Amino acid sequence: MRISDLTELELVARIQSRLPSQPAWVIVGLGDDAAVVETEQARLEVLSTDALVEGVHFDRRFTPPSAIGHRALAVNLSDLAAMGALPRLALVSLVLPAALECTDFDGIADGLTSLAALHRLHIVGGNLSRSPGPLIVDVTVVGTVKRRDVLTRAGARPGDALYVSGTIGAAAAGLGSLRGETVSRDARCVERYLRPEPRVRAGVLIGRNRAASAAIDLSDGLADGVRQIAAASGVGAVIDANCVPIDPGARAWAVEHFGSTVDVATWALASGDDYELLVAVPPRRERRFRAAIRQAGLDFTRVGECTPERDLRVRRSSGDAPLPSGYTHFGSR
Amino acid sequence: MRISDLTELELVARIQSRLPSQPAWVIVGLGDDAAVVETEQARLEVLSTDALVEGVHFDRRFTPPSAIGHRALAVNLSDLAAMGALPRLALVSLVLPAALECTDFDGIADGLTSLAALHRLHIVGGNLSRSPGPLIVDVTVVGTVKRRDVLTRAGARPGDALYVSGTIGAAAAGLGSLRGETVSRDARCVERYLRPEPRVRAGVLIGRNRAASAAIDLSDGLADGVRQIAAASGVGAVIDANCVPIDPGARAWAVEHFGSTVDVATWALASGDDYELLVAVPPRRERRFRAAIRQAGLDFTRVGECTPERDLRVRRSSGDAPLPSGYTHFGSR
Repeated sequence: MRISDLTELELVARIQSRLPSQPAWVIVGLGDDAAVVETEQARLEVLSTDALVEGVHFDRRFTPPSAIGHRALAVNLSDLAAMGALPRLALVSLVLPAALECTDFDGIADGLTSLAALHRLHIVGGNLSRSPGPLIVDVTVVGTVKRRDVLTRAGARPGDALYVSGTIGAAAAGLGSLRGETVSRDARCVERYLRPEPRVRAGVLIGRNRAASAAIDLSDGLADGVRQIAAASGVGAVIDANCVPIDPGARAWAVEHFGSTVDVATWALASGDDYELLVAVPPRRERRFRAAIRQAGLDFTRVGECTPERDLRVRRSSGDAPLPSGYTHFGSR
Repeated sequence: MRISDLTELELVARIQSRLPSQPAWVIVGLGDDAAVVETEQARLEVLSTDALVEGVHFDRRFTPPSAIGHRALAVNLSDLAAMGALPRLALVSLVLPAALECTDFDGIADGLTSLAALHRLHIVGGNLSRSPGPLIVDVTVVGTVKRRDVLTRAGARPGDALYVSGTIGAAAAGLGSLRGETVSRDARCVERYLRPEPRVRAGVLIGRNRAASAAIDLSDGLADGVRQIAAASGVGAVIDANCVPIDPGARAWAVEHFGSTVDVATWALASGDDYELLVAVPPRRERRFRAAIRQAGLDFTRVGECTPERDLRVRRSSGDAPLPSGYTHFGSR
């Protein structure tokens, strides 16, 4: 059965059946012209929107529907994490080919609603449109944060250490093996690509403990993240190539794909989709920071530091080189 | 010049240059991982999201870029109007073909930002994605309303009068003539299609004066609006075909297009895109209602009333007939 065999109401009902009962603060949920909610006292609101577009951000041939739904919400939760915000609600705009199978529709809904439940976030509204082309999942999330706990990209100062969560390169390696670029396939890397875990708990704890001067999520890679924090904060940065926490599976994948002479660190610096956090930590906040990440149960690795000189460098035993640039032109995204 | 020749940052800057300076309640605007805003005291939040998809909701061959931007925001403001909410902020997600001309990008931005300025709504965030196919403008709006002023679809009672704002059919006639379905072209109808005026002021005043028991906007036509209010409220309705305020230009268009034997009222009942409001008004609220719409400076026409019997009828001098159904299957939208 295809979704074109159903009415919009029936499709909405299939999503609704996957949602938990709504909390008291949702006054009007799905099904009216708009959602109506109570706001939270004494907290700021944090809003983000991000679209996943078939053929640009995912390939339906090797991305299961539930992973499409999961990733579409995860990339938005990652933005909230980077601001130190706790997720609260989401609106989901689906632009769908009429020929989409109902089981695939259900899979997308499963991916969205499972991750929403994990983060106690409520889907309060949305929109269904027909697509004459690609499948698109466009999510808007709203989170909350206390005013003094907000993390932005703009607070880093020279001397602040740069820390990155988890490991990087895994998602790019997973995508590469899904694309058939290597013979071997690391199941954990594939999972990292398909179902990234937004670092919400770590972001909230770092914000709440005021343990960082700046933060960003690594949607477009570590090099891009460093570049954005540096630009917004008006500082430079030096990254130690030997310290970049490259995922072991990603390292093996890169060697298999590019050959044993590959500079894995340079590759990993530019590889995206990991949705780890990059944070700047002032020296006097190191203790708070360690306490916060211990509480979050997530490893962070010191990869470099902010500098007064505005240039961006990668340090190797052979000397310093300019930080590789990330994506540049809109057409290449 | 095409947008693929620019960076994402340069494209965002082109939008930013069209925005007024941000009010004090916007703590973090465009350019970080997410927007951060203060909420309003003692008001509920109203959230809506709606996408305009090329090839489904508009045709670029005859819809100027500024009209695409205008309509994408207008359809969302219309949803807020139907809830009695005052617009506050928006996030704009653009999914754009890389070959889009920069002048067209600017036109879309102009349409969005002009209408935003008219309603004192602030664009605080958004997202740019490349599209391998259609151009899509997906907008999320947030408005505010006092708890006791909220309008929903669900409060109508038998005996409540049904009123519709302005006139209907104009947008469908405008679209028809843009499509070349008629030789003559009513410039006013074309403008109604290209740049609908969301009835925000009327919706807010009706809500604030508690002058209606239910409301909806007519994105999918009057028949659909009646159907939705009746279903949500658990009532039936009878619409008087002779009272439907058909736009004179639309009437002329329908006669030219379908021939002089056309049943214009039936056509107008099913024609969409007018973004007028349909409200249910209890008899004891008639005076308040008249005062509210006088203050809003917008005409409303009584088109029928809600009934205890759950069926939906159209009354003509020849007798009653079932209300024509609107769109049904997802594939036809």
